[in-house]
Amino acid sequence: MHWYFVAALLTVLTSSQGILTTLSQSNGKYMYDYATVPFLAEVFKLLVSSILLWKECQASPSTRMTTDWKSVRLYPIPSVIYLIHNNVQFATLVYVDTSTYQIMGNLKIVTTGILFRLFLKRKLSNLQWMAILLLAVGTTTSQVKGCGEASCDSLFSAPIQGYMLGVLSACLSALAGVYTEFLMKKNNDSLYWQNVQLYTFGAIFNMARLLLDDFRGGFENGPWWQRLFNGYTITTWLVVLNLGSTGLLVSWLMKYADNIVKVYSTSMAMLLTMLLSVYLFNFKPTLQLFLGIIICMMSLHMYFAPPNMLVDIPAATVKAAPESLKEVLVERRTDS
Amino acid sequence: MHWYFVAALLTVLTSSQGILTTLSQSNGKYMYDYATVPFLAEVFKLLVSSILLWKECQASPSTRMTTDWKSVRLYPIPSVIYLIHNNVQFATLVYVDTSTYQIMGNLKIVTTGILFRLFLKRKLSNLQWMAILLLAVGTTTSQVKGCGEASCDSLFSAPIQGYMLGVLSACLSALAGVYTEFLMKKNNDSLYWQNVQLYTFGAIFNMARLLLDDFRGGFENGPWWQRLFNGYTITTWLVVLNLGSTGLLVSWLMKYADNIVKVYSTSMAMLLTMLLSVYLFNFKPTLQLFLGIIICMMSLHMYFAPPNMLVDIPAATVKAAPESLKEVLVERRTDS
Repeated sequence: MHWYFVAALLTVLTSSQGILTTLSQSNGKYMYDYATVPFLAEVFKLLVSSILLWKECQASPSTRMTTDWKSVRLYPIPSVIYLIHNNVQFATLVYVDTSTYQIMGNLKIVTTGILFRLFLKRKLSNLQWMAILLLAVGTTTSQVKGCGEASCDSLFSAPIQGYMLGVLSACLSALAGVYTEFLMKKNNDSLYWQNVQLYTFGAIFNMARLLLDDFRGGFENGPWWQRLFNGYTITTWLVVLNLGSTGLLVSWLMKYADNIVKVYSTSMAMLLTMLLSVYLFNFKPTLQLFLGIIICMMSLHMYFAPPNMLVDIPAATVKAAPESLKEVLVERRTDS
Repeated sequence: MHWYFVAALLTVLTSSQGILTTLSQSNGKYMYDYATVPFLAEVFKLLVSSILLWKECQASPSTRMTTDWKSVRLYPIPSVIYLIHNNVQFATLVYVDTSTYQIMGNLKIVTTGILFRLFLKRKLSNLQWMAILLLAVGTTTSQVKGCGEASCDSLFSAPIQGYMLGVLSACLSALAGVYTEFLMKKNNDSLYWQNVQLYTFGAIFNMARLLLDDFRGGFENGPWWQRLFNGYTITTWLVVLNLGSTGLLVSWLMKYADNIVKVYSTSMAMLLTMLLSVYLFNFKPTLQLFLGIIICMMSLHMYFAPPNMLVDIPAATVKAAPESLKEVLVERRTDS
């Protein structure tokens, strides 16, 4: 399986996620408890990974699985980072409005590039750095609301704490991604075994969060397990399956491709969602959406095209630049 | 004199042009006839070029001047193209509003690249093409008004004639630039002699236009030469001198650099003007202005940076990519 096929699939599924979530509402309201969706998605991923691991073990008894505590204890860390990230998100929204928050969210593209370089020691060419910056600029451009609306004034007038928390949020989001990539690539363990560990902790942390919310609400609506499937429709189940599937694809990409590929997939998905919303939900297409799409497409080409295609140099002398990907694909392509 | 110094100066002067023009108004109105400004600027350029030519001839009697009719007759052509362009502009504004017109104006960056390739046979790398497209996207981004305002609806709803005339306008603007470059580079004539020819026709065509306007208005305000300096202030004279100086710099760039350098200079000037307006005229800074500036800066770097700086290739094997400029600078650097 080629990484760009998985990346394209991730783009499509991430994009459907937004659309399905909108479709799962009735009159703009959720008739079910949305907080239960990520938990069920974790359970779904855990089930799928367990079945695949069992099949893999049956097919080849030499399936690599590191089971000592020193290794296993690393797997809850992404969940912990996401938990902190979630709380920082809430704190940020105290200081800035959702529109400013959305704009600041594009920062995570840049922070992912930086942590990717610092922690995973991947070298990027000058052009690839520019491509990453351009991707962030492109997604931001597509979200510009213009000065007729309130968002513009609020964008530059939030308290400094808001911006600092926004930067922290972007760093935490990038850290979670980069750390997961480190986990998945640190040894040649079976992807499914790694997934089982990741999602076990993921399910536990999500359960804990639901329980905590219940405590905070004084069990007003009863414990979470009693209202787990309340108001669930076919569309709600599709949201769960879709979210679970995107998680599995991200996991695959972390092992066989990298964080930058993931960032491109999800950014393109954001643009695709906006474009589809024009047709599905009668959104007004804006000039800035088209500009953003052009910018992101050029960024994609700049990042992934071979250098000899971009500048005129004799093909034979080109040092392979996007080596990070090739390296990974050649060395670790064991089960795809 | 290096081309990038001239280009930077052109950026500063083009930017002051907008600001001086605004400052020359009283209560948002021109107290003088603005149509007389381009005519006087042509006269100023003609005077300066004549003096410089005379000095050059005195210094070296071998100053190259092709005076046969076959060559001279090519010099009114840019003026003719500008005249047609002016009329197309007016026709376009019948179908589209000024805001849409301004957005479409960025197309001339792309058409200049295309005509530069087709007529002047200059090869551009894949990356340089992307840089040109990105420059157009960047300048457009900075001008996005957002959907709160009327401009957004009108942008996609103008009659088809409006868009076609907009494209024609962009082609004519690019053609004038590319043709002037062809003229200036077609032989090793003295730059000042070429200027004298260009500006003589320029002055004549501008005079004809003033006269035509008078005819159309039925000489209501008297003939143009009677109101030539009416209401002129120091600032008005600065506008004239500034416009004339930018013209002289453009002419220099056409001979010793190229159209793409000019396009970058004037695009950067547009952004600089918007940035200065924030301080001088209390314009609200918008997110899209900052995004546009980042995009254009990256475009600049992509177009002009040596390829081995952008991608990791051994410096020795790099085939000089921005050869068009170097070629010109080495071959034709006779008097700078």
